[in-house]
Amino acid sequence: RINSDRLWDSIMEMAKIGPGVAGGNNRQTLTDEDGEGRHLFQKWCKEAGLEMAVDQMGTMFARREGTDPDALPVYVGSHLDTQPTGGKYDGVLGVLGGLEIIRTLNDLNIKTKHPIVVTNWTNEEGTRYAPAMLASGVFAGVHDKDWAYDRVDAKGKRFGDELERIGWKGDEEVGARKMKAFFELHIEQGPILEDEMIDIGVVTHGQGLKWLQVTLTGKESHTGSTPMPKRRNAGLGMARVTELVHEIAMDYQPDAVGAIGHMEAYPNSRNIIAGRTVFTIDIRSPNKDVLDEMDARIRDGIATICEALDIIFEIEQVGHFDPVTFDEGCVKAIRDAAERLGYSHRNIVSGAGHDACWINRVAPTAMVMCPCVDGLSHNEAEEIFPEWAAAGCDVLFHAVVETAVI
Amino acid sequence: RINSDRLWDSIMEMAKIGPGVAGGNNRQTLTDEDGEGRHLFQKWCKEAGLEMAVDQMGTMFARREGTDPDALPVYVGSHLDTQPTGGKYDGVLGVLGGLEIIRTLNDLNIKTKHPIVVTNWTNEEGTRYAPAMLASGVFAGVHDKDWAYDRVDAKGKRFGDELERIGWKGDEEVGARKMKAFFELHIEQGPILEDEMIDIGVVTHGQGLKWLQVTLTGKESHTGSTPMPKRRNAGLGMARVTELVHEIAMDYQPDAVGAIGHMEAYPNSRNIIAGRTVFTIDIRSPNKDVLDEMDARIRDGIATICEALDIIFEIEQVGHFDPVTFDEGCVKAIRDAAERLGYSHRNIVSGAGHDACWINRVAPTAMVMCPCVDGLSHNEAEEIFPEWAAAGCDVLFHAVVETAVI
Ligand SMILES: NC(=O)NCCC(=O)O
Ligand SMILES: NC(=O)NCCC(=O)O
Repeated sequence: RINSDRLWDSIMEMAKIGPGVAGGNNRQTLTDEDGEGRHLFQKWCKEAGLEMAVDQMGTMFARREGTDPDALPVYVGSHLDTQPTGGKYDGVLGVLGGLEIIRTLNDLNIKTKHPIVVTNWTNEEGTRYAPAMLASGVFAGVHDKDWAYDRVDAKGKRFGDELERIGWKGDEEVGARKMKAFFELHIEQGPILEDEMIDIGVVTHGQGLKWLQVTLTGKESHTGSTPMPKRRNAGLGMARVTELVHEIAMDYQPDAVGAIGHMEAYPNSRNIIAGRTVFTIDIRSPNKDVLDEMDARIRDGIATICEALDIIFEIEQVGHFDPVTFDEGCVKAIRDAAERLGYSHRNIVSGAGHDACWINRVAPTAMVMCPCVDGLSHNEAEEIFPEWAAAGCDVLFHAVVETAVI
Repeated sequence: RINSDRLWDSIMEMAKIGPGVAGGNNRQTLTDEDGEGRHLFQKWCKEAGLEMAVDQMGTMFARREGTDPDALPVYVGSHLDTQPTGGKYDGVLGVLGGLEIIRTLNDLNIKTKHPIVVTNWTNEEGTRYAPAMLASGVFAGVHDKDWAYDRVDAKGKRFGDELERIGWKGDEEVGARKMKAFFELHIEQGPILEDEMIDIGVVTHGQGLKWLQVTLTGKESHTGSTPMPKRRNAGLGMARVTELVHEIAMDYQPDAVGAIGHMEAYPNSRNIIAGRTVFTIDIRSPNKDVLDEMDARIRDGIATICEALDIIFEIEQVGHFDPVTFDEGCVKAIRDAAERLGYSHRNIVSGAGHDACWINRVAPTAMVMCPCVDGLSHNEAEEIFPEWAAAGCDVLFHAVVETAVI
């Protein structure tokens, strides 16, 4: 078993970097705080005897040599970036859980045949730069590296420039590595495991997602002196699309979810009818047909709404992945480990996107989940118990080591 | 008649200060640009032989002496501040129209018995600091001066501090002046005059207004892994309130209008259900009973919406004025002037709020309106023709001088 206290202490230490305003973290990708978090992780990796490499997307790969250096490495990891009002565990648990595996192997003086590489993927969260899971997406060949460099944040800063600015643009070609397998430990971010009091989620599938960024253009005018029939109100349009997305998601739930979390009105003045609104629709389903149907219904609905309001619309898809089925062998390794260690477990579908979802396209991949309090994530109040983290990391340890020894 | 070219040139000169991004202006109250605009106006006033005084709210009073210095002055003016994406005429026409009256009187070497004072009221627009018409409201005794100083903008900057920062906090006690009358020239900001091809709106009434700032608090959570029934979505709440306000306004129109132009979602991340939204409802009617009824229905509706979504709400009234009936004598002076000058005219109700609406409580007051293209205002594309401005200013000139001579 891993050292639960050490794992917890490291998580708490990392949480000191980029503190939030309510007990969580704001360590968004490619900020100074992200840079600081990377340095701390690098220092810990060095202390654990690992060799660090960084690719051109800034992804960090910390390697523990195997007895057969030519054997394909087993990868383990997640991400250290957070939401603007994020928790201490989302992503961090998976990276530091990977590091804890190495530390435990060192303690026990266990050598594995295959090298083990702990990974910190750049920009998993996707808030500062859409889409989410950007670096793992480039690694898996889904996105082009230069396209990724050209993503801009809300202030117009390019991903590529910010990566250089924080000093974490490496030399290594992205996606050149071959993996024996990839394992990711993550908090569930939903309520199922806690509700059922189950220690371990064996992730068999991941939901598919679409992010549609919508721009509505009406006409700025005075809220007092513009007669109701003369208004071309892009704010009202955004409101109607928000309701539309909700209703369509409700039609398919529990097989789907949908919401709009990002909303901007321009010029955002109390006495100006919004002339323009920009917002991002987030729809998800484990069923590709459902996802496509929702997408089509939403596009139709937007057209109808905009016609009635005499406003024009533009829809840009800024994120997309199909539902994922994880590798049977890797899933079995996780289930067997949970069983062997005596943890209660169940199969689960990941509601969130993860780097594992992209890596699954280029390597046998699976995920371990542990519960989180009240299913809450993407909230500074995100919380887990040390025992939950330890159980997840134990299972990860056994699955990784079992895969790495043979 | 006034000098139309000179009036137009001054308007164009002022428009160079705080240019917008689309041909209009961004000269919001108490910004550096507002300070610059004030200096230009001050310079012009000096050249016209006027004496400038500034009160503790930063309102500028430029006085042309009368033959009887003890006679109560006739006031004329409006505001030089603009919306963030404002036009070149909203407010500016009324201030520089007042200055043009003085220049014309100087040209014609006409002395009036009563002094004439051209006024630039601070923070009419109310975008940076709610409520609108703040300084005229303090002048009229509606608001307390220290309360006004404590208003904060979206960045947390206090009104009082910003007024000092730009160097326009005067010594004069606010509201100490007594007025024989106050006249304000303004563009209509609505489509009636243009649609009916009428030169002059004789403003008999002003709509009443309420601004309700609403804060909805739900719970930040993950857009992907939070089941639909577990969401407490403050963004969906904002959308439903937006629709509610629209529907209630539609029930009463053309006797009412309503919209939400200011909307913020927090933390405004694509994959976080908004945990908090803040927005301002703007409702107006020339009928006080209608306004009160709308207010009550909106409050009820918000309670119902929030209960269904399991979110909590707070409503703060950040602006309010009752419908206004302007002074009969002043209104007649304007109507007579239009008649005498041969301009077509009609009675009109102001859809927007104006400094004149507050000053009407402490002095006989009326307004002149001229059409604007497509009824468009609070938009950088706001446009008028020089002839329209000249007609409005001619009528203002005659009404003011007639009131000032006797
Ligand atoms: N795990 C996680 O929160 N990833 C961010 C991408 C997503 O929104 O699913
Ligand atoms: N005239 C004008 O636009 N005033 C601003 C206050 C309002 O919204 O009516």
